[in-house]
Amino acid sequence: MLPSLLISIPEGVIDLGWGHPSPSLHPTAALREAANHALADNDPTPLQYGATQGYGPLLHSLAAFLSEQDAYRGVQVRPQDLFLTASASQAIDLAATLLASAGDAVYVEEPTYYLVGKIFKDHGLRIISVPADADGMDTDALESMLRRRAPKPKLLYIIPAYQNPSGASLPEPRRKHLAALAQQHGFIALADEVYQLLHYAQPPPPPIAAYDESEDGCVVSLGSFSKILGPGLRVGWAQAKPPLIQKFATAGVTVSGGGLNHFTATLIHAAIERGLLRGNIAKLRREYSARMNAMRAALQTEFGGKARFAAPGGGYFVWAALDGADVDALLPIARERGVSYYPGSGFSTIGGFTDTLRLSVSLYDEPDIAEGVRRLAAAYHAHAADTTAARRKA
Amino acid sequence: MLPSLLISIPEGVIDLGWGHPSPSLHPTAALREAANHALADNDPTPLQYGATQGYGPLLHSLAAFLSEQDAYRGVQVRPQDLFLTASASQAIDLAATLLASAGDAVYVEEPTYYLVGKIFKDHGLRIISVPADADGMDTDALESMLRRRAPKPKLLYIIPAYQNPSGASLPEPRRKHLAALAQQHGFIALADEVYQLLHYAQPPPPPIAAYDESEDGCVVSLGSFSKILGPGLRVGWAQAKPPLIQKFATAGVTVSGGGLNHFTATLIHAAIERGLLRGNIAKLRREYSARMNAMRAALQTEFGGKARFAAPGGGYFVWAALDGADVDALLPIARERGVSYYPGSGFSTIGGFTDTLRLSVSLYDEPDIAEGVRRLAAAYHAHAADTTAARRKA
Repeated sequence: MLPSLLISIPEGVIDLGWGHPSPSLHPTAALREAANHALADNDPTPLQYGATQGYGPLLHSLAAFLSEQDAYRGVQVRPQDLFLTASASQAIDLAATLLASAGDAVYVEEPTYYLVGKIFKDHGLRIISVPADADGMDTDALESMLRRRAPKPKLLYIIPAYQNPSGASLPEPRRKHLAALAQQHGFIALADEVYQLLHYAQPPPPPIAAYDESEDGCVVSLGSFSKILGPGLRVGWAQAKPPLIQKFATAGVTVSGGGLNHFTATLIHAAIERGLLRGNIAKLRREYSARMNAMRAALQTEFGGKARFAAPGGGYFVWAALDGADVDALLPIARERGVSYYPGSGFSTIGGFTDTLRLSVSLYDEPDIAEGVRRLAAAYHAHAADTTAARRKA
Repeated sequence: MLPSLLISIPEGVIDLGWGHPSPSLHPTAALREAANHALADNDPTPLQYGATQGYGPLLHSLAAFLSEQDAYRGVQVRPQDLFLTASASQAIDLAATLLASAGDAVYVEEPTYYLVGKIFKDHGLRIISVPADADGMDTDALESMLRRRAPKPKLLYIIPAYQNPSGASLPEPRRKHLAALAQQHGFIALADEVYQLLHYAQPPPPPIAAYDESEDGCVVSLGSFSKILGPGLRVGWAQAKPPLIQKFATAGVTVSGGGLNHFTATLIHAAIERGLLRGNIAKLRREYSARMNAMRAALQTEFGGKARFAAPGGGYFVWAALDGADVDALLPIARERGVSYYPGSGFSTIGGFTDTLRLSVSLYDEPDIAEGVRRLAAAYHAHAADTTAARRKA
């Protein structure tokens, strides 16, 4: 039988590498309720070709929902500022089709989401890294690159809140700076903001689209129901100035097939109207916050000062540098001990982060996270001892 | 309020131009049953990231379902020959990303589906027309083009069964010829076969992928649940040799987001397993067949010999040439009389078919079709009288 799901994890392994939600966190009952509501009275709407910008009632209910969120800090999102996507990945792919051509440059952060590169490469784009620090992309470094060096980008890809993998969040001044640079230098900033609503307490600054002062739009903020309802749904949204939204709504693929994920959009509208989305986000924040505390405590207890990391105030990921480790060499040792992770080099376009790994709080609960970190520390200490022994021999 | 659906038709107009199913034909209750089944027992599978090739159980149930269909004539479809798409339009877009580059040529039929051109143009492809006749694409003409003329295509797009708009179906010898030409000349044939299962009686020849004798695959047959369950679902499939299937399954957008429309795929699997798809197709065949008979009868009665058309044995469309008409000039007159259609020039890349229009049996039932054709004939006769009067004056 061919697989049902994207990943399968060997029995007995706690794989802290994957940014997938726990099965126990999927709001299946809520979706069943939403489906029964959307499909009640034999309403044919969910099965017909949907409007190109997306299912109108969801554009309205989502705009109202986002406008009320702490993470939007009073930014009023209007239905005409939104386009319903078939997930952030699909929106990035569509942006690459519509807003760039083969041979063009796309700027990304160093480190960045390890799977975005293949999307851009499928479109023949050249990927160029922009330095980042604990506050995310260094927009001064970006400005220097834009002033001094060819090639100029058509697109820039950034994850400004609870970055994947670093956990960093871009402060407000850098958001303003980035939006201004996009306008000034004529590129589109694609802000992948799928963790925006997953703040545990204090919210991040508003989406970068809120700082776009251009007329035609130079920032697209991408949200997703993947992280706040379920990734299998494949529905997200783009927020941008209406002229830029209309580029997505008039794409060939959109006009030919109608709204990109219309049926599921009608269910999500029902989920918002019935308060199910609000309730689910509250549950996820509580759960991920507790797990992040468990992760932080375990890393401190098990590694002492040997692990350098900043546990972010939202999202899925901890980005931890282990003193003197080669995390690619450590991986098989860790797997033998029943734990896994994603090595840092996968997030670099220039071979960096060989001592750093990504750990996620999304897939396992607190006891498993604590046990996983214990196993990881045991593997690390064994690896360190081996390395020391090997050095002595040599 | 922004619109819910792709189209809206003015009150009182019978718009025979749209290839959308009637609201009354949408199997909403079946989808509700499927949703309750797929989401029963709080099964988290539908909400998790899905497998890149598509939801495994649906790959298996769909392969078995297709293999039993008359329109496959004993062709055994295997799960490894399938990739689940987010509709035929999305698959065409993805093929343009993966299998061609800006500046490459794509060959299409003349006439062809009027919305496919924008998809190819979004990717910077050059569109070149291949002549067609009452049996669909003229593969001898294609062979001459391939032998004599630059530029050679990377892709060829064809609708081989109940063509949109012409209704033509490609006979078996041309299917073999096309597959052989693709192999010989190194292009990929994208066969848009979304009407394949909508034969009223006698089935068409099997999908063109069944004639692909290459090792790595040079034909992709695209099917869709849009025409057999509901277009809002945005799920379809690609059938091809496994190496070609794997190009879709390893695309950046697929690997990043997992299976393209996983949640809905789990519902469709439940619909197949519960016999709902089979029942729905049987109902659609009966209904469309009766409507096509009504369309044929009305065209004969109302136009006499002035309308030349062949009513196809399946699908949605009648392609009718009206003696001496300019169907672009006729359109506003028709709309005043409460009927609409899609003018032929929209399906031509070279300004052809100015006397021809596309009529669909998908959206209206028999009485409305008869009434629509009556109004169309009245508009045509008024238009012809005007034209004659104008000629006399001149």
